[in-house]
Amino acid sequence: MKVSPLAPQAPAQLPALEGARMQTVEAGIKYSGRDDVLLMVFDEPASVAGVFTKSKCASAPVDFCKRILSKGVARALVVNSGNANAFTGTKGSQSTQATAELAGLAVGCSPDEVYLASTGVIGEPLDASKFEGVLSGLADDCQPDNWLKAANAIMTTDTYPKLATRTAQVGDDLITINGIAKGSGMIMPDMATMLSFIVTDADMSPEILQTILSEHTEKSFNSISVDSDTSTSDTVLLFATGKKGPPMREHDDPAISAISVALKDVMHDLAMQIVRDGEGASKHVQIDVIGAVSDQSAKIIALSIANSPLVKTAAAGEDANWGRVVMAIGKAGEEADRDQIAIWFGDVRVAVNGERDPDYSEDDATLAMQGNEILINVELGLGTGAATVWTCDLTKEYVAINGDYRS
Amino acid sequence: MKVSPLAPQAPAQLPALEGARMQTVEAGIKYSGRDDVLLMVFDEPASVAGVFTKSKCASAPVDFCKRILSKGVARALVVNSGNANAFTGTKGSQSTQATAELAGLAVGCSPDEVYLASTGVIGEPLDASKFEGVLSGLADDCQPDNWLKAANAIMTTDTYPKLATRTAQVGDDLITINGIAKGSGMIMPDMATMLSFIVTDADMSPEILQTILSEHTEKSFNSISVDSDTSTSDTVLLFATGKKGPPMREHDDPAISAISVALKDVMHDLAMQIVRDGEGASKHVQIDVIGAVSDQSAKIIALSIANSPLVKTAAAGEDANWGRVVMAIGKAGEEADRDQIAIWFGDVRVAVNGERDPDYSEDDATLAMQGNEILINVELGLGTGAATVWTCDLTKEYVAINGDYRS
Repeated sequence: MKVSPLAPQAPAQLPALEGARMQTVEAGIKYSGRDDVLLMVFDEPASVAGVFTKSKCASAPVDFCKRILSKGVARALVVNSGNANAFTGTKGSQSTQATAELAGLAVGCSPDEVYLASTGVIGEPLDASKFEGVLSGLADDCQPDNWLKAANAIMTTDTYPKLATRTAQVGDDLITINGIAKGSGMIMPDMATMLSFIVTDADMSPEILQTILSEHTEKSFNSISVDSDTSTSDTVLLFATGKKGPPMREHDDPAISAISVALKDVMHDLAMQIVRDGEGASKHVQIDVIGAVSDQSAKIIALSIANSPLVKTAAAGEDANWGRVVMAIGKAGEEADRDQIAIWFGDVRVAVNGERDPDYSEDDATLAMQGNEILINVELGLGTGAATVWTCDLTKEYVAINGDYRS
Repeated sequence: MKVSPLAPQAPAQLPALEGARMQTVEAGIKYSGRDDVLLMVFDEPASVAGVFTKSKCASAPVDFCKRILSKGVARALVVNSGNANAFTGTKGSQSTQATAELAGLAVGCSPDEVYLASTGVIGEPLDASKFEGVLSGLADDCQPDNWLKAANAIMTTDTYPKLATRTAQVGDDLITINGIAKGSGMIMPDMATMLSFIVTDADMSPEILQTILSEHTEKSFNSISVDSDTSTSDTVLLFATGKKGPPMREHDDPAISAISVALKDVMHDLAMQIVRDGEGASKHVQIDVIGAVSDQSAKIIALSIANSPLVKTAAAGEDANWGRVVMAIGKAGEEADRDQIAIWFGDVRVAVNGERDPDYSEDDATLAMQGNEILINVELGLGTGAATVWTCDLTKEYVAINGDYRS
């Protein structure tokens, strides 16, 4: 698999972060010749928050995490790639329970302090005995600077590992936020349709973590789409090891905002890396909708454009086919006045007042479709609602990746 | 453009139908070397009913037809291909008015007895003067047996003309129903995202026509999807010339039902022809969902499966990837109990009670994906709601058709 042309030049280098250590191993879940299991250990109990797929057919690990999240404490995270442990019935829940117990033994904690995520094929029972031989060895070997290995071990059809880091100054303390993610296909918000694990050394209660995680999910992981398909396994977990800075326990603590801003940046960065590694992607497309009757309405329209196969194939073909943008606005079902709409490709206005721009130039519009980045701007002229979503183009490679062989 | 492998062996042969005559011509709207304008004339006023796109950016001809439909009388139908006259502002509505006036002069009727439809590129103003020289000549030359020419003239990226005919016995009279359609891309119900024109020689009031047309639209044109994109121009018109059989003016007239059944068959036939000519289609896929909490819920789930790019690429690759069906059920947002779901490919049950079928055979499942017809059957086990939708697969040819050149 060749690396996406939209990949970053090099993966971000993540610093060690006090209170979190990790290791990966090849457990032979499905792939051979690469690590497929990640164990992350929190030496002391970490606060934890999570957002999960809204799929009605959620995977067994998603069910497991949702069940233990009310406790708000994490000591370990186990992630495997190659098998999603989804649609696996009672075998699936037995497997999650067995895995959490094995990890609890290895780390020295209760199974309900062990967070789990699985990604890969759906419907194949996950054999928990694969973890039996490996977790205690992994626990003994965890290192604080293994972030790149961690990001590599959770990949499936991703063509590059996804890492991001930011810092926040809180008084005299420099707080670090590190995050990793995997994506590729089955990427459509609701929630985010991917896995991401983010750790900070800040000292925050689970309630505060949950608040800032949920807030930033909406405009990051929930504002991206590769193919409009929502996975059964989407999981974002945010951990706080509590090793740095003042304890934050109240929602109005002024120290929270600096960390919240840094977290937002990490999540945006990871979300963009996921879109830029969308299966077969050759273009990164940003869609801004303004002038809608509400932010929610703007987002529905932006997603209708982002998910339109005709818009996405036009992006792939560098075809300034703004009529397809009109079509996608019209089919969204949201309030729109045809004769008020204006559309830009990059800074070229192609349509205004419900018809082609009087100064329209096919050459200028086509130029705006070239290069790796395409910006589609829609002004509805109705109100102040606005939204931005990101997607990639739909190429023959997407069809090849998903049609030519079983993934 | 090579003809779809799913095309019928030969187009249906439509009999002449009393009261309707038609002719086509090359008016040079966009294409060269083929007819691109159809004029159909009803020698005496015909009853008319219609259903139209729900797009918020509907084309000028859709606006025009909706405005005159309350009169319920048609004397002419003008259809052009190559230009949709959509998103063309006041120029668009001036163009429809001018076209209707020209046709009215040619046929000898009022402009509000002239029905219009346009299909093709969006955003290019349609020059009504193109019709100026041709409509009176066309009117003089109309023939009752030009159905195949009519079906050819309305095509855009269609690879074959779409025609269907049925008869209904009403007392001593044999009533005929003839229909033509065009489709290909931008095909997603709501309403049907295509053009279809159906004519019967029965004698029915506009109100009865509208009732039976709306009833059968839901399970025919509104139950198909090629690419989930909804056109700005979708139009289905049903005309009754009143030349045969008893006059039907009351909704409880027992003679209606035979005609309604035949109409349903014509509409189903045309809808299937549209799906089988979906851009790049190599497989015709039928999705049956039963056991849902309501028919509407079943249809939403069936469409979620039909529109999933991952399901559609799996169909293209003959990959029995039922995990993607699970995913699509889960993302639909409708009531579903993961552990009650069963899934069949053809007559091979691949999943039951929320996990892989104990007797699952990859070979059998793969066999069910081969050939031109794929049947996906989902049993939700919750209630009695059921729906059937039809779609086609997503192939590299779809991307090529829509990405490689401006359509």
